[in-house]
Amino acid sequence: MARKPLDYEELNENVKKVRYAVRGELYLRASELQKEGKKIIFTNVGNPHALGQKPLTFGRQVVALCQAPFLLDDPHVGLMFPADAIARAKHYLAMTPGGLGAYSDSRGIPGIRKEVADFIHKRDGYPTDPELIYLTDGASKGVMQILNTIIRNERDGILVPVPQYPLYSASIALYGGSLVPYYLEEEANWSLDFVNIRQTVAEARSKGITVRAMVIINPGNPTGQCLSEANIKEVLQFCYYENLVLLADEVYQQNIFQDERPFMSSRKVMFDMGPPLSRELQLVSFHTVSKGNWGECGQRGGYFEMTNLPPKTVDEIYKVASISLSPNVPGQIFMGVMINPPKPGDVSYPKFTAESKYVHESLRRRARMMTDGFNSCRNVVCNFTEGAMYSFPQIRLPPRAIEAAKRAGKAPDVFYCLKLLEATGISTVPGSGFGQKEGVFHLRTTILPAEEDFPAIMSSFKKFNDSFMEQYEGYSRM
Amino acid sequence: MARKPLDYEELNENVKKVRYAVRGELYLRASELQKEGKKIIFTNVGNPHALGQKPLTFGRQVVALCQAPFLLDDPHVGLMFPADAIARAKHYLAMTPGGLGAYSDSRGIPGIRKEVADFIHKRDGYPTDPELIYLTDGASKGVMQILNTIIRNERDGILVPVPQYPLYSASIALYGGSLVPYYLEEEANWSLDFVNIRQTVAEARSKGITVRAMVIINPGNPTGQCLSEANIKEVLQFCYYENLVLLADEVYQQNIFQDERPFMSSRKVMFDMGPPLSRELQLVSFHTVSKGNWGECGQRGGYFEMTNLPPKTVDEIYKVASISLSPNVPGQIFMGVMINPPKPGDVSYPKFTAESKYVHESLRRRARMMTDGFNSCRNVVCNFTEGAMYSFPQIRLPPRAIEAAKRAGKAPDVFYCLKLLEATGISTVPGSGFGQKEGVFHLRTTILPAEEDFPAIMSSFKKFNDSFMEQYEGYSRM
Repeated sequence: MARKPLDYEELNENVKKVRYAVRGELYLRASELQKEGKKIIFTNVGNPHALGQKPLTFGRQVVALCQAPFLLDDPHVGLMFPADAIARAKHYLAMTPGGLGAYSDSRGIPGIRKEVADFIHKRDGYPTDPELIYLTDGASKGVMQILNTIIRNERDGILVPVPQYPLYSASIALYGGSLVPYYLEEEANWSLDFVNIRQTVAEARSKGITVRAMVIINPGNPTGQCLSEANIKEVLQFCYYENLVLLADEVYQQNIFQDERPFMSSRKVMFDMGPPLSRELQLVSFHTVSKGNWGECGQRGGYFEMTNLPPKTVDEIYKVASISLSPNVPGQIFMGVMINPPKPGDVSYPKFTAESKYVHESLRRRARMMTDGFNSCRNVVCNFTEGAMYSFPQIRLPPRAIEAAKRAGKAPDVFYCLKLLEATGISTVPGSGFGQKEGVFHLRTTILPAEEDFPAIMSSFKKFNDSFMEQYEGYSRM
Repeated sequence: MARKPLDYEELNENVKKVRYAVRGELYLRASELQKEGKKIIFTNVGNPHALGQKPLTFGRQVVALCQAPFLLDDPHVGLMFPADAIARAKHYLAMTPGGLGAYSDSRGIPGIRKEVADFIHKRDGYPTDPELIYLTDGASKGVMQILNTIIRNERDGILVPVPQYPLYSASIALYGGSLVPYYLEEEANWSLDFVNIRQTVAEARSKGITVRAMVIINPGNPTGQCLSEANIKEVLQFCYYENLVLLADEVYQQNIFQDERPFMSSRKVMFDMGPPLSRELQLVSFHTVSKGNWGECGQRGGYFEMTNLPPKTVDEIYKVASISLSPNVPGQIFMGVMINPPKPGDVSYPKFTAESKYVHESLRRRARMMTDGFNSCRNVVCNFTEGAMYSFPQIRLPPRAIEAAKRAGKAPDVFYCLKLLEATGISTVPGSGFGQKEGVFHLRTTILPAEEDFPAIMSSFKKFNDSFMEQYEGYSRM
């Protein structure tokens, strides 16, 4: 029988090449165990509300009022909503003739893009143009659109950090480009080593790859590091001299858990460096409402900002954005509220600040507990989670554990993570889902389980790990 | 100076090939005139709320409560929300651990997919499997994903109706395929003529194109026709024998403005026909919350349903959907409310029915007024807007008007539409934005301006048109 166009064998090969660890073996086994009644601690996805984080009230009040503008005419509205949420809802409704049910401009609501520009100006100390800011359905959609714009064929290469967030490898495969992996230096706090990166680029070029862009994720996913200003400068110089577009994934910019290295945007560092970089280097930066203290993943709000892109290119990006008409409007309003939260003196300021601070400080304590917990375990070393939402400990597996994994037909890190899951219910993602150096093994966990559960989780992890190590080391400890 | 990767000349050629009439010359000129203070009647986009259509209250109440679940604990909630909206909000919140701020399953919330399956079963009389229904950020995103799955290279052809909705031509260009246009028969109420379509396919094949899929838009955009059951049967048989996937764009299924030909889904007709078609033909159907009586364009809710796709393909589509994590959750809840509106006996039923009926009957009256208005004009003929939201009158331009357009450096339909805009403020889209047969000219308007404005709009159109015709016909009427 003839094959049909949507039979597997007949599909677009790029679709088939996509790898996405979201539904890997670990996740499937965890779901099975959960069905069998085992208590599973899902630490595998950066989805804070799913693990019990409460939404920040002010944003929800504003968006609820925008969804139901008839509430604004209800005499009881003042009993249920604070005055500043009501005023803010009216402010956004005035920007959206037709309200939340009308398509906006394909680039997003002009008034909110203006507010994002003000936020960036205030954050970096350099003004920007709202016309170069496009709102999106979450940051991922923006990353995908920009990669689709850059990639022409399989000889176009994109430098991606390893370990990496699989959005990049998956999108590059989908659009038919080549991923050029560069390794982050675990021993140097997951920083970038340009001696190695230069060699990586030279090797790719010798294979006929045109390297066209470089991705950095700062703060890092899955690695949790905050890049130093010096390291960001090196990135910018490298991109400038090698003629690469820099794609700066800065979605975790609010998730910073140490004081030595506050978040600095690539854009700010670039403008600090001045010309020629600040006038010539092509930079696209990404942000989202899904992370930070908001964690509003399900709302799908994001933006990207383009720096030094020629107007004709900006027009092309507008044209492609317009094919799917407009990003969702409620998500745009979340973005507006996120970058313009209640200010001192506003009715909602005390509550907003208390809620926001609670989330942030608790995550900071959890980052510390998790790193310390891992480092107290036999054969486990873990850089401190300086930012983002993840720990990425290295698990030094004894040779006999690696052999046992081989006999079981599993990658060594998958073998370890499965045993961990069966013994403790802790569901992690093996490092191989993100890429790691040959012969080195990791796992990724989020720092998102409830704070009060942390002591039990870390002690349960330690108990499993140390007895696993004892079993496979096969000799008694000193 | 070396070109940079995001310079226009260096972009992905497929991006550059995309054409999208949204921001065409007419729209730009209308925006200019509006800035100069002229009153513009925008009839160029199917965006009902932007033209004053009110949202259906029940859906907004449910989604507002889901956004702000703390309202459910407020003692005043019963003063502002009806009991069934409160119950429905609780129903959806029970389906979404983590609420609207958590990523859902990449395919959408399982409980809502189950409700969509029930809706389809009830509509068509044949059960379906929720695992084959994926929720999306509006129908366009689903169409784009399926086209990206089908198209392998520039020799893969997709049959698209002409006149067509530019989503199809734009997406096919973006993913590097070939659009194979088939003409709708204006004289036969924009139906499909398979003698011509067979010839079209044969010609495409002789040029080395592998035709792999066929798009139908029913009810039609921009043409407004409802396909007969007999015509849909012909489509299905043709796709079966030619080994094509059928992509059925059925987003206007609720917008039906006559009683002779109620909406029938391609899926129902296929199951009525029985095997082998019902078991073998690969069909993907699309729906949305943006159209119908809802018109909730800005919320970006949609779904697609897959019939007779092998499980491995369904898995591939799931994998690619998971790259961008999940469709927006509020849009998913709108879909739930749309396919499961208040029922007789529910508190909100009378209000919901009144609002919904008002929108529908008013659109029906407007469809009639618009068609009759066009047909009363000199050299204008227009099929009745049986469904969807558009009229697509043919404008029979006299040779001297065509010559005048040529002298002005404009396509004849663009010339006519610009003159119309300048004279009356009515902003339309020239037929060339959708495709039309050589030497035949059209324009597209929506039927969405406020009903009370219709007599003035149609009389203003007639006055302009008839004097335009008089000017260019150059001889006095009999």
